Amino acid sequence: MLFRSDNVTAVCPQVIAAILSVNEGDAAPYGADEVTGRLDAAFGAYFGTEVFVHPVATGIAANALALAAAMPPPGAAICHENAHINTSESGAPEFFSGGGKLIVLAGEHGKLSAEAIARRLASLPPDRLQSAPPTVVSITQGTEAGTVYRLDEIAAIAEVCRRRGLVLHMDGARFENARARLGVSPAEASWRVGVDILSYGATKNGAMCADAVVIFRASPHAEALNRFMGQRRLRAGQVFSKMRYLSAQLLAMVEGGTAAHNAAHANAMAERLSSGLAAIPGVRLVHPTEINEVFVVLPDTVRANLAAAGFAVRPRPEDPSLIRLVTAWNTRKEDVERFLAAAAGIRVAA
Amino acid sequence: MLFRSDNVTAVCPQVIAAILSVNEGDAAPYGADEVTGRLDAAFGAYFGTEVFVHPVATGIAANALALAAAMPPPGAAICHENAHINTSESGAPEFFSGGGKLIVLAGEHGKLSAEAIARRLASLPPDRLQSAPPTVVSITQGTEAGTVYRLDEIAAIAEVCRRRGLVLHMDGARFENARARLGVSPAEASWRVGVDILSYGATKNGAMCADAVVIFRASPHAEALNRFMGQRRLRAGQVFSKMRYLSAQLLAMVEGGTAAHNAAHANAMAERLSSGLAAIPGVRLVHPTEINEVFVVLPDTVRANLAAAGFAVRPRPEDPSLIRLVTAWNTRKEDVERFLAAAAGIRVAA
Amino acid sequence: MLFRSDNVTAVCPQVIAAILSVNEGDAAPYGADEVTGRLDAAFGAYFGTEVFVHPVATGIAANALALAAAMPPPGAAICHENAHINTSESGAPEFFSGGGKLIVLAGEHGKLSAEAIARRLASLPPDRLQSAPPTVVSITQGTEAGTVYRLDEIAAIAEVCRRRGLVLHMDGARFENARARLGVSPAEASWRVGVDILSYGATKNGAMCADAVVIFRASPHAEALNRFMGQRRLRAGQVFSKMRYLSAQLLAMVEGGTAAHNAAHANAMAERLSSGLAAIPGVRLVHPTEINEVFVVLPDTVRANLAAAGFAVRPRPEDPSLIRLVTAWNTRKEDVERFLAAAAGIRVAA
Amino acid sequence: MLFRSDNVTAVCPQVIAAILSVNEGDAAPYGADEVTGRLDAAFGAYFGTEVFVHPVATGIAANALALAAAMPPPGAAICHENAHINTSESGAPEFFSGGGKLIVLAGEHGKLSAEAIARRLASLPPDRLQSAPPTVVSITQGTEAGTVYRLDEIAAIAEVCRRRGLVLHMDGARFENARARLGVSPAEASWRVGVDILSYGATKNGAMCADAVVIFRASPHAEALNRFMGQRRLRAGQVFSKMRYLSAQLLAMVEGGTAAHNAAHANAMAERLSSGLAAIPGVRLVHPTEINEVFVVLPDTVRANLAAAGFAVRPRPEDPSLIRLVTAWNTRKEDVERFLAAAAGIRVAA
Repeated sequence: MLFRSDNVTAVCPQVIAAILSVNEGDAAPYGADEVTGRLDAAFGAYFGTEVFVHPVATGIAANALALAAAMPPPGAAICHENAHINTSESGAPEFFSGGGKLIVLAGEHGKLSAEAIARRLASLPPDRLQSAPPTVVSITQGTEAGTVYRLDEIAAIAEVCRRRGLVLHMDGARFENARARLGVSPAEASWRVGVDILSYGATKNGAMCADAVVIFRASPHAEALNRFMGQRRLRAGQVFSKMRYLSAQLLAMVEGGTAAHNAAHANAMAERLSSGLAAIPGVRLVHPTEINEVFVVLPDTVRANLAAAGFAVRPRPEDPSLIRLVTAWNTRKEDVERFLAAAAGIRVAA
Repeated sequence: MLFRSDNVTAVCPQVIAAILSVNEGDAAPYGADEVTGRLDAAFGAYFGTEVFVHPVATGIAANALALAAAMPPPGAAICHENAHINTSESGAPEFFSGGGKLIVLAGEHGKLSAEAIARRLASLPPDRLQSAPPTVVSITQGTEAGTVYRLDEIAAIAEVCRRRGLVLHMDGARFENARARLGVSPAEASWRVGVDILSYGATKNGAMCADAVVIFRASPHAEALNRFMGQRRLRAGQVFSKMRYLSAQLLAMVEGGTAAHNAAHANAMAERLSSGLAAIPGVRLVHPTEINEVFVVLPDTVRANLAAAGFAVRPRPEDPSLIRLVTAWNTRKEDVERFLAAAAGIRVAA
Repeated sequence: MLFRSDNVTAVCPQVIAAILSVNEGDAAPYGADEVTGRLDAAFGAYFGTEVFVHPVATGIAANALALAAAMPPPGAAICHENAHINTSESGAPEFFSGGGKLIVLAGEHGKLSAEAIARRLASLPPDRLQSAPPTVVSITQGTEAGTVYRLDEIAAIAEVCRRRGLVLHMDGARFENARARLGVSPAEASWRVGVDILSYGATKNGAMCADAVVIFRASPHAEALNRFMGQRRLRAGQVFSKMRYLSAQLLAMVEGGTAAHNAAHANAMAERLSSGLAAIPGVRLVHPTEINEVFVVLPDTVRANLAAAGFAVRPRPEDPSLIRLVTAWNTRKEDVERFLAAAAGIRVAA
Repeated sequence: MLFRSDNVTAVCPQVIAAILSVNEGDAAPYGADEVTGRLDAAFGAYFGTEVFVHPVATGIAANALALAAAMPPPGAAICHENAHINTSESGAPEFFSGGGKLIVLAGEHGKLSAEAIARRLASLPPDRLQSAPPTVVSITQGTEAGTVYRLDEIAAIAEVCRRRGLVLHMDGARFENARARLGVSPAEASWRVGVDILSYGATKNGAMCADAVVIFRASPHAEALNRFMGQRRLRAGQVFSKMRYLSAQLLAMVEGGTAAHNAAHANAMAERLSSGLAAIPGVRLVHPTEINEVFVVLPDTVRANLAAAGFAVRPRPEDPSLIRLVTAWNTRKEDVERFLAAAAGIRVAA
């Protein structure tokens, strides 16, 4: 099945090469190795600022630990109702934080607005004992709707956070796709607009089993967040004895341009898919296609065309008429074209 | 300050008498005493069916433990966005359940509809690993908006639960007020319309520090819920060495009509307050007044009148124009009348 | 059954009077009332130093929250293997602390020694990521063996804690019994010998359902401990809407000498019981009787004598030959004498 | 530094080959892929019985989740005081189980005895509400002392568990080393002697970042344990989007004899190291060397010899005179001989 997700892909050659390159000799365990020792500097160079980097094995672990760091009891997090942390992490943020509450807001095209956040905060006095006081806002970049926050939108949210002393967390499972879309540097896409802590996604973008929690040291929250991560990760089962193999994957993404290259390719494929589908009569784009995800409603004829050509598509559980198509670092242009041709009723081999 | 809440009141005489009546001699600790031993039978008689009763010291503990019993990991609960469990329990349900997720829905006048629940459930396939699967629906009766679910509304929700194997939990902090309003028996108000587990509120209704988790044995979930409560309550810090003093409070409420009497009085006072205020020009009732809570928007003149007479009112954090007035078992008719007169601009002593 | 425990007793008259005395008028909920507002000052006067006081409904809640405050993840607590927190709280400290580890040590007559603690700490480098680093030492005063730490023994433990930056927690379920035995002031028995945080037991000593976490403000850990307690207690289900009724119980204990009086009486009764039993041939005291608990091994003849007279005794689960007898604030001298006479084979009415 | 641990090694060629072999094409995420789909059958063939297999990324995650499955609240686990789960997992078992208690016992050479377990169980009545009731016994095979439980020792422990309805968990971080020592089949080393659930260690034995929880379906506890693992692993952050890469590592270990071969080699190297050191005057073996770990006390002369030759050794935190030397799948015979020569004072190049 084509375009099912970006987490179904194989691992990109640069990551494989990086893993093989560190498979030599002994290395100190639990992150005391030299490869892991290079992470802070490498990500620091990438982001143009000092950072703390904590490798984890899954995006859920990255988000759950970052949020646990940012909402010690009795804290709460504000997020979009469709945020991955709310819909697809099985309560992991609540579990890892010891009961941290998610306060969900609606918002068009998967985005929270600074105004909506400010309004909700105004209704939650920080000293009201019964409410879990919000201590963090979590935004997803690119969003679960395949859209991208503009830099000024993030900055406005960060300003709301700053005024109330909240941490700004970015779920960056598709950070690189968003950054490619915006055409900005890693710095511009993150700490310069006020992000304190980032779940940096590598697995969806071509790695094997590695994501990272990146804490920007310029953040006023950096020391507290980093202390938590450093001490708490082991109890969470996220300290790896042979950590060099995770660290190498992360280094491969940010050194030499792999992350940017993979994301740009996936975006380009999605853009072609999106514009191609939109040109077919009756097809409706539900969200603008800004990263590597296309959300469309397909008329019955198009569905029939695809089925006839052997292309499977999966309706979304929340709305059976809605289809999500996801491209990835290794999506082939010819597959996109065949899919589009089939959708348009042109006979192709699936 | 009048009408601030029903949890600011003193303890009613019947509860005081009950406490004093058990203050004699030794009694086995941790609930093995004879007073506690009478709870199941007394509540069984009250509800007209066999029940398991677990005393706790706070309404939050009742809700958090009942929900923890009903959403073992990785379960989730569906509730109204304004439910007390979501807005005013500081993440206790999430904490006690080990990360249980609250899935919030909107709904007019504080009520969930069976349709809205069914729609959300349809979007959450029970076998989708990433979602915390809903295992319980929690409704508040009377609601946080001072309204009451009709019996057919509850039965419709219960039917949705039954079809999906979900537990139906009722946060009955104001169960007796709702029951008084509906004019039905405890049985009709609970298990006969499909409630599996009830947080039975006594403290707001005149007790000192006692609420109860009531499990209806006819429920297909009863054994599992009861096993959890029995085993888990101690780890939760909710098993009392001198439990007879909590049990006596609960018995006092359901034996001899105290609970019903207290609730009916509070409702009557709220009804008078509500109709009196509604008759004043410019006053707007935000929700129908169906139990002991009145939600009104007051015009500036009325606010000024009240202030001039020395009556304080507190705007709601979520909406400063909104005022909540709560009556209780011991609200005095003359206080209601003085308040109404003052609101209408008639000179009274506050 | 006589001498079963000190938690089987009724509530002492002073506590009943205190409860009745606050049962008048409305009071702000959740601890914002005036009675609760007097706690810090009253306990401050009692302890001769500034304190923060947090009422809870059970001793387990007191210990579990105090330890949770003192071992934020990934912390651990060092305690005696027979400590109540280890043997009789069903994992509550581990649960409330989010996985806090109990590190247990042996020690004669229920007491930890400063040397044993220091030795264990030396084997646990504070920077070893894999160990949960000890952040608190918990001692029970009087101990679970019915003995009492001497002041110099506590001071020595406190010094070990101080050198490593650890909190010293005292489980004071029988603090007053120990203090009566030592003949020292509340100050001398606690913060002056280095205790940072105390679970102050009132329920066993004559209250109904009230214990307190007392934090000594002179402690370098006071602010952090207090912040945790203040914020976290509600999520733990230990904030009471009508808190005045718990606070009144606590005030009754420390104001007017009730706590001291009750404890001294219980101790005296235990001393008589202990010396009387020890004088019977074949009876062996297992621990010195220093508070209100007597631990004895009874020969078969004595058991038969007691049974013949209708006195039940319960063997300890950990050792069926061992009997624990506990006296309380209301133990009657004549019951002690009858029990002793029966044990000695003199015919009495049980 | 030689012989520091078996978790400092590189990944063995067979595991690397397995990873590369699955790096082709798309695969369903979160374990729905074909490689993962082969795990149950492959491990079933290996163990000669039907099993459920759950891949995780760390040994701590394997143990913590297996124990969480086996001690739902308010359960407890009995283990050796030096068990990895007690000394080196930072409270992860307590955290993942929602407050599960570890009850620790002493035992010679790292081993629990059936008698000691039975004795402790006898002191903990299963219906005593205050104790966290033991629901699982956890043994480590090979032990943390480098020794091995004999099959009859395990069977005796299993019989104690069976009589009380407890789960028998085996922390098999070095299961293969123990099995190689015993010279028995995987079946004989596990379920045939009563093991219900096994943390199967692959990482220390040559894999990259993969261990597995193996549940033996013949166990009466299998369904409950498996349901927990299947549902709970995602909330724990241990479900991998690209799970095939973990599953491939596990398959590489059990298919084609890699696990057995690697373990046998490590054992042989340890045996040579052990016997060589024991032959040096003044060297004392603290435990018999039965797997790939050597525990020795070295006299000053030997330490000086090693230091002179440039060999570093690390004293154990719990006892600075104690040295642990660990061999691995890739330990080179010449390194062992050089180390022994140096220890004996023969000049070698480090």
